Amino acid sequence: MDVARFSPSLERLVELISKLPGLGRKSAARLALHILRHSEEEAEALAQAILDVKRLVHLCRVCSNFTESDVCSICTDPKRDHSVICVVETPGDVLRLEKSGAYRGLYHVLGGTLSPLDGIGPNDLRIAELFQRTQENSVREVILATNPTTDGDATALYLVRALKTDGLAVSRIARGVPVGAELEHVDEATLASAMESRTRIS
Amino acid sequence: MDVARFSPSLERLVELISKLPGLGRKSAARLALHILRHSEEEAEALAQAILDVKRLVHLCRVCSNFTESDVCSICTDPKRDHSVICVVETPGDVLRLEKSGAYRGLYHVLGGTLSPLDGIGPNDLRIAELFQRTQENSVREVILATNPTTDGDATALYLVRALKTDGLAVSRIARGVPVGAELEHVDEATLASAMESRTRIS
Repeated sequence: MDVARFSPSLERLVELISKLPGLGRKSAARLALHILRHSEEEAEALAQAILDVKRLVHLCRVCSNFTESDVCSICTDPKRDHSVICVVETPGDVLRLEKSGAYRGLYHVLGGTLSPLDGIGPNDLRIAELFQRTQENSVREVILATNPTTDGDATALYLVRALKTDGLAVSRIARGVPVGAELEHVDEATLASAMESRTRIS
Repeated sequence: MDVARFSPSLERLVELISKLPGLGRKSAARLALHILRHSEEEAEALAQAILDVKRLVHLCRVCSNFTESDVCSICTDPKRDHSVICVVETPGDVLRLEKSGAYRGLYHVLGGTLSPLDGIGPNDLRIAELFQRTQENSVREVILATNPTTDGDATALYLVRALKTDGLAVSRIARGVPVGAELEHVDEATLASAMESRTRIS
């Protein structure tokens, strides 16, 4: 839409919103128009929330998860299993796994994956910090939960080799058919993985 | 996601974003995480754009379209046809119609529709202003482009009756099958309208 003709400031907002992931120009325009209908207070609250999140949120000193304190609430939770560390790519992955409710151990956020083509090597990720944590005797298992993508798999493979130590179990999350998905809509690589990792039930 | 546990400010941003139309909590969390990855400057630019849009954009004194000046760029454009006024519900509708490029007249934004159940009567919309504009001899047609919904249709019907004056044509935009749509996915009411308003082609 030729919003710029009516209002350069509206055009600017549409432009900035459309840079967010998953939002095309059309959705961005819809959101901008909605914000324009906001009360002054609501618009200010949204602007302030954006500034606050940048100002207050940083990464946990131990696991690099999001936190507003020095060490995050998972790392400091005595009720969690401190003998297991789940390695993920991003803080968003921690949120997703926490939502599943299936895990009660600690996390370690790598901050990405190894990607030689993009020049991202082990020193660009928080791998040294992971090693340091696994040296502690209390840690008995590392679960690799990087994405089942080429880069995620390569990173997991690298970590499996690098973490090889007596007494430390290293596992990879299972890949298979998503719960609730119909086979018709599942790609072949996933189906092959699901078949390979089948579990006997009787 | 239980974002609040990690970061109240992230939770607050997710909450505010998820109030925007078409964004559930999941999309809101994705956007909030993306904003968190923004540079300080990008986050500030977005926050500022939200504040600017509320500060700078207001409604055109003549047609109630969005503008940053007193009268909008459509109302002041001498190249447009000042004898036709297209009546729409919201400024967003003006943007959409302008994008279609099919209209070169003026607009009048009502600011909503009549809705007796919600207590919205003719005095709550900019209907008096529309009448005043149509009194001018130069106006020869009013096109009613309110939404083809119950409220939009009722509002159009009200305006047809109220605008009945010698020498003033009043029309309603056509309803029919959307361009590019397959009949399979078009609802029955639309199909019925499309059939009723069919145009002879040979």
